[in-house]
Amino acid sequence: MKFKGRDIISIKDFNRKEIDYILKTAETIEPLAKSGSDMLHGKMLATLFFEPSTRTRLSFEAAMHKLGGSAIGFAKPEIASVKKGENLADTIRVVENYADVIALRHPLEGAARLAAEFAQIPIINAGSGAEEHPTQALLDLYTILKEKNQIDRLNIALIGDLRYGRTVHSLAYALSLYDVKLHLISPELLRMRREVLDAIKKKIEVAERTGMEEALPEIDVLYMTRIQKERFADMAEYAKVKSAYKIDCDVLENVKKDMVIMHPLPRIDEIADEVDATPHARYFQQVWNGIIVRMALLALILGATE
Amino acid sequence: MKFKGRDIISIKDFNRKEIDYILKTAETIEPLAKSGSDMLHGKMLATLFFEPSTRTRLSFEAAMHKLGGSAIGFAKPEIASVKKGENLADTIRVVENYADVIALRHPLEGAARLAAEFAQIPIINAGSGAEEHPTQALLDLYTILKEKNQIDRLNIALIGDLRYGRTVHSLAYALSLYDVKLHLISPELLRMRREVLDAIKKKIEVAERTGMEEALPEIDVLYMTRIQKERFADMAEYAKVKSAYKIDCDVLENVKKDMVIMHPLPRIDEIADEVDATPHARYFQQVWNGIIVRMALLALILGATE
Amino acid sequence: MKFKGRDIISIKDFNRKEIDYILKTAETIEPLAKSGSDMLHGKMLATLFFEPSTRTRLSFEAAMHKLGGSAIGFAKPEIASVKKGENLADTIRVVENYADVIALRHPLEGAARLAAEFAQIPIINAGSGAEEHPTQALLDLYTILKEKNQIDRLNIALIGDLRYGRTVHSLAYALSLYDVKLHLISPELLRMRREVLDAIKKKIEVAERTGMEEALPEIDVLYMTRIQKERFADMAEYAKVKSAYKIDCDVLENVKKDMVIMHPLPRIDEIADEVDATPHARYFQQVWNGIIVRMALLALILGATE
Repeated sequence: MKFKGRDIISIKDFNRKEIDYILKTAETIEPLAKSGSDMLHGKMLATLFFEPSTRTRLSFEAAMHKLGGSAIGFAKPEIASVKKGENLADTIRVVENYADVIALRHPLEGAARLAAEFAQIPIINAGSGAEEHPTQALLDLYTILKEKNQIDRLNIALIGDLRYGRTVHSLAYALSLYDVKLHLISPELLRMRREVLDAIKKKIEVAERTGMEEALPEIDVLYMTRIQKERFADMAEYAKVKSAYKIDCDVLENVKKDMVIMHPLPRIDEIADEVDATPHARYFQQVWNGIIVRMALLALILGATE
Repeated sequence: MKFKGRDIISIKDFNRKEIDYILKTAETIEPLAKSGSDMLHGKMLATLFFEPSTRTRLSFEAAMHKLGGSAIGFAKPEIASVKKGENLADTIRVVENYADVIALRHPLEGAARLAAEFAQIPIINAGSGAEEHPTQALLDLYTILKEKNQIDRLNIALIGDLRYGRTVHSLAYALSLYDVKLHLISPELLRMRREVLDAIKKKIEVAERTGMEEALPEIDVLYMTRIQKERFADMAEYAKVKSAYKIDCDVLENVKKDMVIMHPLPRIDEIADEVDATPHARYFQQVWNGIIVRMALLALILGATE
Repeated sequence: MKFKGRDIISIKDFNRKEIDYILKTAETIEPLAKSGSDMLHGKMLATLFFEPSTRTRLSFEAAMHKLGGSAIGFAKPEIASVKKGENLADTIRVVENYADVIALRHPLEGAARLAAEFAQIPIINAGSGAEEHPTQALLDLYTILKEKNQIDRLNIALIGDLRYGRTVHSLAYALSLYDVKLHLISPELLRMRREVLDAIKKKIEVAERTGMEEALPEIDVLYMTRIQKERFADMAEYAKVKSAYKIDCDVLENVKKDMVIMHPLPRIDEIADEVDATPHARYFQQVWNGIIVRMALLALILGATE
């Protein structure tokens, strides 16, 4: 399978065979995350973050360094020359001279796609607009695979803000390529977007709910997300929702022994601290898996592995 | 020629023989920009940017990494200890302990010169005040040389804001060392500064104009610059100037077939997007040449090449 | 002595034997600061600065690079995901996936200790709250040792703001492990904190004074600190204090020939520029020593040296 030179813009650009190939490459590359490697010695990653995201930026940089490469970039729009009115296409055509691959984070949907059209080097979408975060979806899949040895035949719940979180949109699309049952659990106001629903319902079984309790006993993977106060006009409504979607040790009494809890982080308090010590908690493991998956992607699109 | 340990403060500090030597070194070093090198392994560049300039900072960092060295620094004055009232001389005497060479960007004229007086390691002026940007002038010369195989005997036009742009000041000084005819084309308000004019007129033929059309047919290199709205009290005047100094495909009908368009970037809209696809457009090539020239300078002043 | 995996949180966590061991390691490692080393090749330092401190951050990064390692991190709280409400414990458990060691700067006392409790990798306190800055204390000791060949039997004066400066608190604790006489010279308002005084008086001879002149002739090491205007409600009082605690060449007429002046920097004007050229001035040397000591600490806690 040929990934050299390829852009990573949307999870929708990949079929199951390709995703499985990326996950398999990640498994092969995982030992290098401990031992280090010079696979990408002399290669440069540019991280262009027009929107702050320390965790994603550091994850890409760590992945690049672990493969022996280097990283440059900026972490704030204000200090980029965009301030002087430069358009994204020009910025990309400048920066591609400095680097071998660009990881781009941008507040606007379509930004990564536009960048890829202008760039002669590969672009990785590190989050754009409300819809796409393909490397997060891949690391989520990798986490499920590592924890469960398979993705097929699982009951997977996405809980919380399914409307505004780009993470759950990319993940839902990715999961629709597998034989899973997807439980979408959210307040009415934050239901999964119509276009995502329509697309995934054609492929997999989807159950929408507002309450969490009923579905819990059959869930294999519980994917929790943060609900942001800003989404609510009515603070009483927010308070109600907030307490309804909270995982603590009481809630865990009704779940499968080997149910896995994931979260894209940062969390506020939708997962109680007491849960961290339980064997269900895998959200910090996800962070580690994020490095592995990004190492695999960098190695693949820079042609260091096949 | 000995460059080891030398500061790069002003283009005026260099004679033609020295500049030719730097350009020749750049040609020799250019293949390393693709292949990578360990020439500066273990060496450290500190980028001290008291004024934001993503492009210049990333260019220096990319150049250093391509030679196997490392880079540290800051990109914003607010996060430097200058905030606590420290003077530049102290900052330099602190930072020189961390690095082998410093690239300094500063809003005040004379800042780089002052830094060089205090530092025991070489200082490269990465832009100071309105007057000096020597590495930009050198990369501009390198671009002309690569595109035209010579700098002598060319008709070169500098167009736009010739008053406030430090790029055109350094470039005009540099070009005055060659046998060129310089066309200075700008609105009255933004004419080339008197002191620059006086200095270069002693050495080369200079023609000042407010209109672009007349000179165009004989121009070999057209160097475009951005005109900033802030320079104008009268917005009607700005609008008039803006449309008068704009390069599009219509304008290009009256130029030499091999005329080259350069621009220090970022551009706003003084060069229409449609021009990008023409063979005249060399402004993104300039960005690449910037890395080459900075690699050459770093290698020379750190004594890795002679 | 085993330092591998150890946190560096407070100078109070170390006994004299351990500190002497660190200083001895620094002496051994000092040649590598010039020659470079690959001792920590493939290792990653994360610098998490929730409070700006360019000098300390760059010092850690330079130390890491000189040992062949890499560094990632952030320099401003605003661009960290703390903005989204994440707590420090979560941030640490995320970042420890990216790195082998974390250098943490935080405005709150206790932050570094808390981080160490959650992290599975070593934490170095790069300054927290008003009390602790252990690596500064160690580099101060190293400077005294290098300048005087011993720390015991010296007369050491700490001058200026002894109340709010975390540097002098950590240093006073460290010096109390040696056989020194400590002169604490400050305005009444900025006297050394009671809890520090109580602790060190049990171990060493301490003399408190408001005037500088009397003690000067017997001082071996004069440690100057910056007095911040913000500490004073009454500007007349500030002006008086400011001029009373100022070192210039006149003041130096009454000191030992080999008296050494140190300062954690940045200084405002408590040390006149004219002093820089005297053999007493060692404050820029301290900066260099900071790299050495941090190299030693990184090598020790990452197990690259013993």
